[in-house]
Amino acid sequence: MPELPTDSLWRLLSVWPIARLGTVGANGAHLVPVVFAPAKGSIWSAVDGKPKGANRLTRVDNLERDPRFSLLLDAYDDDWSALWWVRIDGEAAIESGTELELSPGARALKAKYPQYEEVPLFRAQPALLKLTPREHRAWAHRGMDWLAREIANLAIETYGT
Amino acid sequence: MPELPTDSLWRLLSVWPIARLGTVGANGAHLVPVVFAPAKGSIWSAVDGKPKGANRLTRVDNLERDPRFSLLLDAYDDDWSALWWVRIDGEAAIESGTELELSPGARALKAKYPQYEEVPLFRAQPALLKLTPREHRAWAHRGMDWLAREIANLAIETYGT
Repeated sequence: MPELPTDSLWRLLSVWPIARLGTVGANGAHLVPVVFAPAKGSIWSAVDGKPKGANRLTRVDNLERDPRFSLLLDAYDDDWSALWWVRIDGEAAIESGTELELSPGARALKAKYPQYEEVPLFRAQPALLKLTPREHRAWAHRGMDWLAREIANLAIETYGT
Repeated sequence: MPELPTDSLWRLLSVWPIARLGTVGANGAHLVPVVFAPAKGSIWSAVDGKPKGANRLTRVDNLERDPRFSLLLDAYDDDWSALWWVRIDGEAAIESGTELELSPGARALKAKYPQYEEVPLFRAQPALLKLTPREHRAWAHRGMDWLAREIANLAIETYGT
């Protein structure tokens, strides 16, 4: 399977708005949609101020016990020849502390998502997931060259999901 | 956390085009986008004719060893107050055999996706993932009543992802 060039991967991470994060817990795989931003060779996602179903987040509990994550970026299209996905596997760390407000991860998230002007980036306890890629795989119906061109042409405004 | 009514869940499964399937393998969580259709109380997804990166699919290998699956449906929107997700956890079985062509799962997939008029529903060896829900959880920024109304208003043409 051909590889997606690393520069295409990081460009995709900087413009694509949504991914699905997979972790492993006692009940098996746990999936949740996440917003994220790349900085300093890692991918950052905040335990942010969007309303949550529970105070403790399963993703955090899972990653504390088993740091392995899988992050999937993809787009659906009724034209199945336009389908693609990119999956990044690696290990996560949970960073916390008030100094996170000014960290590269927090700054990257605020720069990528104007929504964070309204929605708090952090809850009472600032916390960021630091997702460090170990490997990535990509698939596109039309092949890797096509996907790399698609990514090069993505504007940050063309938030399709 | 309030529950999404069961009829809303099954309506969503019948009109929403794309989900992300999580399984557990030796390397942790494994995520892949899937198309799917509900029939007979289960959710069906085909090992179909779309080009694949490998002949043996990791999702199939994983489910044979550990049948637990997690299926996530969600939509991204720049308006974060419109965000929602629905997650279904349960156990999967892999069904195979030439008689699958006429099975309720295969018929439901063909009825939902006109793309299967062009793309083969099966590869050389017909195989369907039968995903049987054990429980589901849902979250919506605007609450469950709002999400149930949104689902009621979804037309099968409004394939957002």
